[in-house]
Amino acid sequence: MIKKYVYGSPVKTGATVMEIAAEGGDPAVFAVERGERYSFSCALGEKDRVYGLGEQVRGINKRGWKYEGWNTDDPIITEGRTALYASHNFIVVCGARTFGVFFDCAGRVQFDIGYTRRDALSVTTEDADVYLIEGEDINAIIHEFRTLIGRSYIPPRWAFGYGQSRWGYQSEEDIMEVVEGYANSDLPLDMIYLDIDYMERFKDFTVDRTRFPDLKGLAARLKARGIRLVPIIDAAVKAEPGYSVFEEGVARGYFCKDAAGDPFIVGVWPGDSALPDVLNEDARRWFGEQYRVLLDSGIEGFWNDMNEPTIFYSRRRLEHTIDNASSWQGKSLALGDYNRLIASFTGLQNNPLDYKEFYHETEQGRIVHERVHNLYGYYMTRSAAEYFEEYAPEKRFLLFSRSSYIGMHRYGGVWTGDNASWWSHILLNLKMLPSLNMCGFLYCGADLGGFGGDTTEELLLRWLALGVFTPLMRNHATNGSRLQECYRFTDMQAFRNVLGVRYTILPYLYSEFVRCALRGEMLFRPLAFVYDDERSAHVEDQLLFGDSVMIAPVYEENAMGRYVYLPEEMKLIRMKGGSYTEEILSCGDHFIEVPVDEVVFFLRPGKVMPIAAPADCVERMDGALRWLQFIQQPTAYELCEDDGISPIRGEECLRRVVVEPQ
Amino acid sequence: MIKKYVYGSPVKTGATVMEIAAEGGDPAVFAVERGERYSFSCALGEKDRVYGLGEQVRGINKRGWKYEGWNTDDPIITEGRTALYASHNFIVVCGARTFGVFFDCAGRVQFDIGYTRRDALSVTTEDADVYLIEGEDINAIIHEFRTLIGRSYIPPRWAFGYGQSRWGYQSEEDIMEVVEGYANSDLPLDMIYLDIDYMERFKDFTVDRTRFPDLKGLAARLKARGIRLVPIIDAAVKAEPGYSVFEEGVARGYFCKDAAGDPFIVGVWPGDSALPDVLNEDARRWFGEQYRVLLDSGIEGFWNDMNEPTIFYSRRRLEHTIDNASSWQGKSLALGDYNRLIASFTGLQNNPLDYKEFYHETEQGRIVHERVHNLYGYYMTRSAAEYFEEYAPEKRFLLFSRSSYIGMHRYGGVWTGDNASWWSHILLNLKMLPSLNMCGFLYCGADLGGFGGDTTEELLLRWLALGVFTPLMRNHATNGSRLQECYRFTDMQAFRNVLGVRYTILPYLYSEFVRCALRGEMLFRPLAFVYDDERSAHVEDQLLFGDSVMIAPVYEENAMGRYVYLPEEMKLIRMKGGSYTEEILSCGDHFIEVPVDEVVFFLRPGKVMPIAAPADCVERMDGALRWLQFIQQPTAYELCEDDGISPIRGEECLRRVVVEPQ
Repeated sequence: MIKKYVYGSPVKTGATVMEIAAEGGDPAVFAVERGERYSFSCALGEKDRVYGLGEQVRGINKRGWKYEGWNTDDPIITEGRTALYASHNFIVVCGARTFGVFFDCAGRVQFDIGYTRRDALSVTTEDADVYLIEGEDINAIIHEFRTLIGRSYIPPRWAFGYGQSRWGYQSEEDIMEVVEGYANSDLPLDMIYLDIDYMERFKDFTVDRTRFPDLKGLAARLKARGIRLVPIIDAAVKAEPGYSVFEEGVARGYFCKDAAGDPFIVGVWPGDSALPDVLNEDARRWFGEQYRVLLDSGIEGFWNDMNEPTIFYSRRRLEHTIDNASSWQGKSLALGDYNRLIASFTGLQNNPLDYKEFYHETEQGRIVHERVHNLYGYYMTRSAAEYFEEYAPEKRFLLFSRSSYIGMHRYGGVWTGDNASWWSHILLNLKMLPSLNMCGFLYCGADLGGFGGDTTEELLLRWLALGVFTPLMRNHATNGSRLQECYRFTDMQAFRNVLGVRYTILPYLYSEFVRCALRGEMLFRPLAFVYDDERSAHVEDQLLFGDSVMIAPVYEENAMGRYVYLPEEMKLIRMKGGSYTEEILSCGDHFIEVPVDEVVFFLRPGKVMPIAAPADCVERMDGALRWLQFIQQPTAYELCEDDGISPIRGEECLRRVVVEPQ
Repeated sequence: MIKKYVYGSPVKTGATVMEIAAEGGDPAVFAVERGERYSFSCALGEKDRVYGLGEQVRGINKRGWKYEGWNTDDPIITEGRTALYASHNFIVVCGARTFGVFFDCAGRVQFDIGYTRRDALSVTTEDADVYLIEGEDINAIIHEFRTLIGRSYIPPRWAFGYGQSRWGYQSEEDIMEVVEGYANSDLPLDMIYLDIDYMERFKDFTVDRTRFPDLKGLAARLKARGIRLVPIIDAAVKAEPGYSVFEEGVARGYFCKDAAGDPFIVGVWPGDSALPDVLNEDARRWFGEQYRVLLDSGIEGFWNDMNEPTIFYSRRRLEHTIDNASSWQGKSLALGDYNRLIASFTGLQNNPLDYKEFYHETEQGRIVHERVHNLYGYYMTRSAAEYFEEYAPEKRFLLFSRSSYIGMHRYGGVWTGDNASWWSHILLNLKMLPSLNMCGFLYCGADLGGFGGDTTEELLLRWLALGVFTPLMRNHATNGSRLQECYRFTDMQAFRNVLGVRYTILPYLYSEFVRCALRGEMLFRPLAFVYDDERSAHVEDQLLFGDSVMIAPVYEENAMGRYVYLPEEMKLIRMKGGSYTEEILSCGDHFIEVPVDEVVFFLRPGKVMPIAAPADCVERMDGALRWLQFIQQPTAYELCEDDGISPIRGEECLRRVVVEPQ
């Protein structure tokens, strides 16, 4: 049951798809205080756990820390962070009393989940719609919430293949080197991503003709080999006279404006730039139409970036800061002065004061950016998705975004931003998955191998052994870091073994994904959502993956294996490429050895799992199925059988197959 | 057996205490290349492990990453870092062939330990003495190395108590609030640390008389309660006319100089400052004598900071950078330009080029700083230690440093620098302990609760439950972070239980520490140094603590306990304050529940452990001993019995006690 409470005059966010009449009074679970902000607080019982918040730091159980809904581009993702690239303000308190609550507020939302005091939860918001969601258990509550926010995006089937990306691919030659690198090492590849260097001086919707003389031809040649080119689109548009996207946007008033009504100029990759006002419906349609130039070149997938939106500097603050620097000349800079000087430059990026200085023209009138900050990535992505549907209504496109807000899950997926080549980020990747799923984001993944810093062969192999399970499976790295395409390393058979698992399990991954999207279920669930025992409630490094499988990847360097907790008897599957061994393990604790060239997972009792033979891309898979099983009697499975491209309207694509025990 | 090989004309570092004649040729274990730098490389077998490097990131087994010996003040300690505050260039390769090697080089040393290729080790140095150490096993090799580098520093017994620190204690009132806070909550306290704010405008060897009108009186009053005041000393001396330390240093030529022979001016806390030339013997004696003003006030302990040395800016680079900033005015800053502008300011701190621009006057002549960079903290600390011995030869002082090099372990301890309130840093704390011990640093510890960022009650309690075992047990935090003195939190009984364990086990900790110092042994050992099985070789989150105990702290948020691997049958001790329970656990894997108010550890078979009754400070402990035991027959233990203050010259202080089984 969902109850809606309205505080102040919240901006419409587009998070939900149901009209719900507002209740009077406050949600019974909270003490509510009204001041400059609204504050919602309640006690936490000794054993209460708190789930949710989607893309965030720390545990599956969020208890013990403070978090913010405030989309932020900052690539140093440590435990101490409070906000990442997305705001997913949905939590479920689980314990003595179990309830869900969604704070639908596009501005800054703060969560203190047992941080200040372990026994207290408090959330503060600006004007907000607050939804209280009750149900018989956490799964029912999450299902109810997913109904409220609408069906999750389903990408084309090929988007479940493995993709390679890197900031630094400069030319068609670079791209072909990667394609041949994979092919020559007999490694699969479904997608190759173009980062910002394919553009002409970082101008959206341009292609550098010297380095990519024939993008359309390249896309076609690759597609003939089963590989898609997936270019990046940045939020900000270069402010350059003669550049048609900029000039048209200015002429039509489609950029965010300062208080005087002029385009608000910010620095991003191309230098001075303007931000498309994606919250303005006309501007949004216009921006979406710009993708056409790439669609017409045969592009079928995009990733939207820098849409928190990132601001390296605002023109005015930069000028002021440079002017001001000279006032420190010749002075001895003790502690405070030194900090102020350095901070005046480091504080240029994403300065909160800049977000107060530009405006959107919305259905609800002119709104200062900071009140709708967290919607920007959502509406940029929606602009593309809505245009794709117009451009080719009978086709699914790949689309995912760095920044997001709940509601965007209907239009595209997410990658979880600029992580690093740290072992701890394998575990962070795992922990975010169920939280993202709760909030509707099913098509998601992290940069495998790590974006920032230097990876190692062992780190990449171990991370891929988690990545084979994530819907978005992409190896991506930043400019200047160690090259991390799989074929750069030594043990090619190990990479073939691990990447091969992805294609082997693809029928299961795809079927589970589509079913979860259609029915508002979670692809990844914490053990606590399925098992009632106290140990399961505390497991933070294993997940249920679909209905049949439990995963438990290795995330420590130089490890010979790991501990696994089995809440019931399960069948351990050790898989390399298309081959595997099986072993039944008893309920309880086990230390299992896991070589780096092997993927392990666990089949639950009474469950089956369709698998296929590996191939070098999704389109070349032969369609023949095999079944992993741990059953005593004939067992039904809902297999997704569609063309992998046409929009999925309903459950027609699911076919019930009965598997006989063997 | 130790063999010495000399490459080039290395600067004398003072790391070793033995004269060893140089061999001809190269160490047989390495292929050596001579170019701009010396490169030492060898193959690593599939199962080889590599130990050492003292204060460094990542695992106990260092394999899989690249590291640098280059003392660096940078408080964002992530996995991706390659250098911390200290350079401890000793490693042991352990596997098919087991050998130790010490690269005695005060400049930059680079280690690639299976990073570029998992099967290869390579080390590059400048001119260096290279010591190859062979022995029958890793323990023999480490013992040999410890003999080479000389006996480890032993602090006074009271320095094994619990201390509270914070950057931000501004006045005598602040100090007394902390003292009373601990007393009123019935929590023990042995030391309270003064960070930079006790000084008059950050001037070394001054005391701000308005905020600390009577430091001598304060020190005496606290000492009467069993509590020591421990002030910080920074490396750099404020460049201020009329400030006697600066003027005297300039007049005598005791500061590091630029190429023209003028004091090289750098910015640190007080603004423009000069760096004492601690590598110059006369300057070092002079700098040590400056501590007298505080010793005369009854101070018996110090911590030396900012001695990497940290440079916030050099006067010349700052001026150039500010001038240069104006050249960007009015320009659109695309990617490269923007990065250059910001980097020109963020790159002021610890700029490698600045370290090329000043000089030391040493016995070996004038040497540019970068060649001896890693010695600075060592020689600053040595300057103090040598003066203390002159000042009061019959007394031990507490002394530890942030920056260090092997050799400094004879003069003082270390804390491991500016960590953060991250769960992962509990484990990092644990992993550094055996590596530091290998390199001679026995008196060491991390900032408990975390220095940077905001701690939580649970994090602090879990971290203290490791900290009770570390010789230096100090809760320390940065300015502006959440207050983290134990009494600020909720569950005082939990803190009493955990801190009480420190005093309960103090007779064991002290006896083991002194024995390990006298005999060149390690207080903390990886399981692999004691047990031969393959599982032990991979354990990275448990340690042997002294000869009788294994520790296995909890380092995960919201955990109900943890897995523990027992290489043999052991007795689980669950301790709260002075009370405990015992349970014998079988060899193998266990999941043990660990409440936050409890400290767990494991007594090895055939071993005993002296414990005492907790007290509110070390000096008030009653001296009565009890024995934990897991023995079948009378068992000897070497108990350290001394006055806790006088210098320990030899093993006279160890008394053999035979414990009867009960």
